[in-house]
Amino acid sequence: MSKSTFIHDDFLLDSEASQELYHQHAAHQPILDYHCHLSPQDLAENRSFNNLTEIWLEGDHYKWRAMRANGVAEEYCTGQADPYEKFLAYAETVPATLRNPLYHWTHLELKRYFGIDTLLSKETAPEIWAEANRQLQSPTKSTWGIVDQFNVQLIGTTDDPTDDLLFHDQIASGDCPGKVVPTFRPDPAFLSDQVQHWNRWVDRLGHSSDLDCQTLNDFLSALEKRIHFFKDRGCRASDHGLQRCPESILSETKSQEVFSQVRNGGSLSKEEADGFNGFLLCWLGEQYAKVDWAMQLHLGPIRNVNQHLFDQLGTDIGCDSIGDDRQIPGLQCILGELSKRNKLPKTILYNLNPTHNYPVAAMCGNFSQEGFAGKMQFGSGWWFLDQLEGMTWQINTLSNLGLLRHFIGMLTDSRSFMSFPRHEYFRRLLCHLLGNDIERGLVPHDMSLLAPIVEGVCYRNAARFLDADA
Amino acid sequence: MSKSTFIHDDFLLDSEASQELYHQHAAHQPILDYHCHLSPQDLAENRSFNNLTEIWLEGDHYKWRAMRANGVAEEYCTGQADPYEKFLAYAETVPATLRNPLYHWTHLELKRYFGIDTLLSKETAPEIWAEANRQLQSPTKSTWGIVDQFNVQLIGTTDDPTDDLLFHDQIASGDCPGKVVPTFRPDPAFLSDQVQHWNRWVDRLGHSSDLDCQTLNDFLSALEKRIHFFKDRGCRASDHGLQRCPESILSETKSQEVFSQVRNGGSLSKEEADGFNGFLLCWLGEQYAKVDWAMQLHLGPIRNVNQHLFDQLGTDIGCDSIGDDRQIPGLQCILGELSKRNKLPKTILYNLNPTHNYPVAAMCGNFSQEGFAGKMQFGSGWWFLDQLEGMTWQINTLSNLGLLRHFIGMLTDSRSFMSFPRHEYFRRLLCHLLGNDIERGLVPHDMSLLAPIVEGVCYRNAARFLDADA
Amino acid sequence: MSKSTFIHDDFLLDSEASQELYHQHAAHQPILDYHCHLSPQDLAENRSFNNLTEIWLEGDHYKWRAMRANGVAEEYCTGQADPYEKFLAYAETVPATLRNPLYHWTHLELKRYFGIDTLLSKETAPEIWAEANRQLQSPTKSTWGIVDQFNVQLIGTTDDPTDDLLFHDQIASGDCPGKVVPTFRPDPAFLSDQVQHWNRWVDRLGHSSDLDCQTLNDFLSALEKRIHFFKDRGCRASDHGLQRCPESILSETKSQEVFSQVRNGGSLSKEEADGFNGFLLCWLGEQYAKVDWAMQLHLGPIRNVNQHLFDQLGTDIGCDSIGDDRQIPGLQCILGELSKRNKLPKTILYNLNPTHNYPVAAMCGNFSQEGFAGKMQFGSGWWFLDQLEGMTWQINTLSNLGLLRHFIGMLTDSRSFMSFPRHEYFRRLLCHLLGNDIERGLVPHDMSLLAPIVEGVCYRNAARFLDADA
Repeated sequence: MSKSTFIHDDFLLDSEASQELYHQHAAHQPILDYHCHLSPQDLAENRSFNNLTEIWLEGDHYKWRAMRANGVAEEYCTGQADPYEKFLAYAETVPATLRNPLYHWTHLELKRYFGIDTLLSKETAPEIWAEANRQLQSPTKSTWGIVDQFNVQLIGTTDDPTDDLLFHDQIASGDCPGKVVPTFRPDPAFLSDQVQHWNRWVDRLGHSSDLDCQTLNDFLSALEKRIHFFKDRGCRASDHGLQRCPESILSETKSQEVFSQVRNGGSLSKEEADGFNGFLLCWLGEQYAKVDWAMQLHLGPIRNVNQHLFDQLGTDIGCDSIGDDRQIPGLQCILGELSKRNKLPKTILYNLNPTHNYPVAAMCGNFSQEGFAGKMQFGSGWWFLDQLEGMTWQINTLSNLGLLRHFIGMLTDSRSFMSFPRHEYFRRLLCHLLGNDIERGLVPHDMSLLAPIVEGVCYRNAARFLDADA
Repeated sequence: MSKSTFIHDDFLLDSEASQELYHQHAAHQPILDYHCHLSPQDLAENRSFNNLTEIWLEGDHYKWRAMRANGVAEEYCTGQADPYEKFLAYAETVPATLRNPLYHWTHLELKRYFGIDTLLSKETAPEIWAEANRQLQSPTKSTWGIVDQFNVQLIGTTDDPTDDLLFHDQIASGDCPGKVVPTFRPDPAFLSDQVQHWNRWVDRLGHSSDLDCQTLNDFLSALEKRIHFFKDRGCRASDHGLQRCPESILSETKSQEVFSQVRNGGSLSKEEADGFNGFLLCWLGEQYAKVDWAMQLHLGPIRNVNQHLFDQLGTDIGCDSIGDDRQIPGLQCILGELSKRNKLPKTILYNLNPTHNYPVAAMCGNFSQEGFAGKMQFGSGWWFLDQLEGMTWQINTLSNLGLLRHFIGMLTDSRSFMSFPRHEYFRRLLCHLLGNDIERGLVPHDMSLLAPIVEGVCYRNAARFLDADA
Repeated sequence: MSKSTFIHDDFLLDSEASQELYHQHAAHQPILDYHCHLSPQDLAENRSFNNLTEIWLEGDHYKWRAMRANGVAEEYCTGQADPYEKFLAYAETVPATLRNPLYHWTHLELKRYFGIDTLLSKETAPEIWAEANRQLQSPTKSTWGIVDQFNVQLIGTTDDPTDDLLFHDQIASGDCPGKVVPTFRPDPAFLSDQVQHWNRWVDRLGHSSDLDCQTLNDFLSALEKRIHFFKDRGCRASDHGLQRCPESILSETKSQEVFSQVRNGGSLSKEEADGFNGFLLCWLGEQYAKVDWAMQLHLGPIRNVNQHLFDQLGTDIGCDSIGDDRQIPGLQCILGELSKRNKLPKTILYNLNPTHNYPVAAMCGNFSQEGFAGKMQFGSGWWFLDQLEGMTWQINTLSNLGLLRHFIGMLTDSRSFMSFPRHEYFRRLLCHLLGNDIERGLVPHDMSLLAPIVEGVCYRNAARFLDADA
């Protein structure tokens, strides 16, 4: 491979040290994609893709946002346009994405999946469309083929507690080359401010667990049953998406009252809702500790900001944004309480607003545990921060306030089967940063010190943290 | 021009690629200074300047702040000292401004206006004073001469809705080589918490529009009349300076009540004032959409922090500061509502606190419009952020979260006719960043991709966005 | 000294200009450690240290945090383990601290105190332990020997207003080679929300000042007496650690009521406590202005986040964290009020959350004083920010918003006698940044401009600001 192509062997690696670290210690590590939104059905059925639009643009709100900012009509984003027309609309947008992570992702993905070195644009769209679609016919480009090609050892999907996980059963009994495990994400339980929506979900929870859920105790029992149901299917982590971490914790008695109130269609005050969420998060945290799951908190998004498009298209269509709520009082409250109870599970904190990097990373340092190096994780740059600048900030923050050595590294958080190269992208950046440190004399030029860090962050730490061999 | 001078041909341009981008694609672009505080009177009357203090230090609160921090007495900043003594006090301060943007601005301006390469200090002050003052006698250094020299195609001044715009009429009928248009800035309408001040302004508004303004309807009609009055004089943008974007929107009925209350001298609760401002901003936004104006929101300053100097000197004297109010709930509220009504005008959001860069830039991405690339603009680094670090953050944030390709770029926001080289400064930084990306392999070394970005950001995007040819 | 060792002569200095600046203008400046937590007793008694654990790990919560994150048991951090076992636990942690400031501090300290170039690890621990302990037997490694070796001219300890300062008297009458002065830190006076704790401290204050402290007036008189007591012993600065700067100021009458209320065991509302703290801080600020002390505000920590360890070990054990409270309304309130009264003392503002860098630095610029260059100081990167990234941000923020030229520079804030090389570390960074600016043409390559900045920031500015010769 030559340096003359945009994505060349040493892309992002501008020192000899970084090249050595990447090629010797990072490139060949397996992938643990422990948090993503891939479809269990696609994995169960070893889905093949008819064309590049199906595998690349379907469900990718990053691309839709960029296309909309470029003036592209909704028809070509989420709408009914012909697959090729959609692809063409994206291709025309790509040159306008220079300096946006999409530009790198796009060409890294074309290269790794199809060996295509051509820069995508309106002019090159037809040939790339033809070539990619030709290759997509091959069984090596089905979901299983892709998992195999990228040496993906573990995929953690994101699943509702009421899900029957039948696709996971199907995957487990099939020949998918990587392990696929569910992740327990009980976000609807925290939306008691949307009374009807919440009650419908509690009904579903009751149904899924054969419990009536008229009282808080039933509700908690139902959640507990589902936790064990998930655990039996390989689940090893929970996940919570919260605009703001709860800042107060209602007593159990008060929580029972509040639960009954909303269960009977009444509405809660902001304080009650926050306190109930605090109660619930602590209760769940205890359960996670019991089953040795990681607790993931994704903090800070504001959802469905564009009411217009939400009414038309629903959620997850690229109109979410970065909130500026405070997170530290909540983290102090929840982590503090769980720690006081001696029931704090291993935890990964992700923040969407980069202004929270330092306080969140510092918070992690207060709750270490004897014998468990890296129990509290400051999570990888997420969503809007999943790009060179954001990932650099995350790595530097973690380095300065904690121990990079024990960082569990990257995940894609993606809905697309073409996102696995984001692990490569992260690894190149990591090696670039360390190589640069060596060049500047900030770390000793001693590979026996650096190799364990690179290998740990790329693979081993997450394998240990998530018990990937189990 | 040699590299031996401080401001040389390739100042800030440390790669061949950056030099090519700047000299081939940026340097010769016309200037659109679409937001500034230049005096319409000075432009109408083609003012000449008696000396360097008049053109350079008058009204420049950046310089006053630096002088004060250097221990200079108020007499030499805003006071009655002799012009040369004031200049000398600044000259003595300049060496202490190393690493502050003033150091670059000072020498870039001396170079571009007077060809002076000497570094300013106490020692060199006399010769620079003499040489600059000599040149200021030339007609090429009048306001029109300067507009001509810097190829300024458009100047957007900042004007009160009650202004008669007679100077703008005079400019339009004169020979100023650039187009000068007013900008509609109704800030006093949002200060209902200062009851007397607010009422006096509403009186003036009534007077300027021949309407009595005793009811909300009259008030809105008066504003509407002034909007059309401004539009007829070439206005194409509004501007709002807000410490915090309103977070709530009163109904029209409730707004009528609240208006009458404060109009009759009563005071409003914080909630009422916020909700009234929200109502008003949405109503104005709708009007801006109708006349196709850009809505500019300048968010985050806290004003007149030093009561002592405010009592002596009034506003805009260099004692404003960076606030830490939240802005996202307000932007979500106001932009969301206008978008729901399908009445969101093209918008430029400027934040003063750099901590808001990411959430504000992300917010822009939620409100795109079919057929209008770059409708939502994350505005250029502003005021305290109008320097290399702040502008770099703005450009990188925009690049990572949106499309740099459609960015409308720089404005001076200045009160001084010696600030036009800030466009050059910005352009050099832009080319430095892109050149650096090329060197590091982060963007392809392909001028057909990069030239449109540079030319767009320096000139074409703003020309299109603001319909500069109209 | 060769480049082959990790800590070599030009560590951090990657340009000729930076090397010249450091070696010619920074390296030999005396140290003014105007804010630290060194033990007056250790200085009074010219303490010697039995082993490396005593001088290096005792009281160092930075190291404990890292060790805990590495899975080390509490016994080896704050507990009863054998000194060598503790050292070994730290040595094993050190390779995991790569990219954390501890890695640099550790090796810089081993080098400067013991001439040790070996990288610390489990393997090298025995030889380093032996060699360091051998050298610690020498009188040159007692506290006085260290003060002499590092040319420390001034040490500002941190002292409770009720302290009898007998150790300071003993130091003054002894042969300590540097001046040691107390710093007035009345934090307990601001904790009226902890009624019992507060009352016990007010009792102690009364006792120390022979005043009964039943009324606010007595309380203030007692504080005033202690201020003069401290002043007589060389004190030249106060210090306040505040999670959030007070945002309101009670009247004196209302403060008297509130004082009596809590003095009689009653509790205050949040608003009352904030307003009382605002009253008190303004009153103290006035006193500081009278005695020409610097007022230091350390803003933003949240304390004792881990209740579990707090119950076992108490305060200052490495479970404090970075808060996200707002600070600007409070600073505007307190500094504004003192300025209005014409009683604002010279001030140093330190913020723990880097998100406050820009607004706090901008706030400083509003309160300058004629004839006193640099009266308002944006303080050095503090605690979690006392590392290359944090210090770089602080220096760049100050440079962009104020005058680096008058910055009073570094302090250790340390509890350990092995921290003096942090001044060297800061100076190397400063020269690195300036050298880099020269290389990039951002500042003129003119040592007559740069040397006064380096010499000023490293020593002269603080000497003037704190009247170090007095």
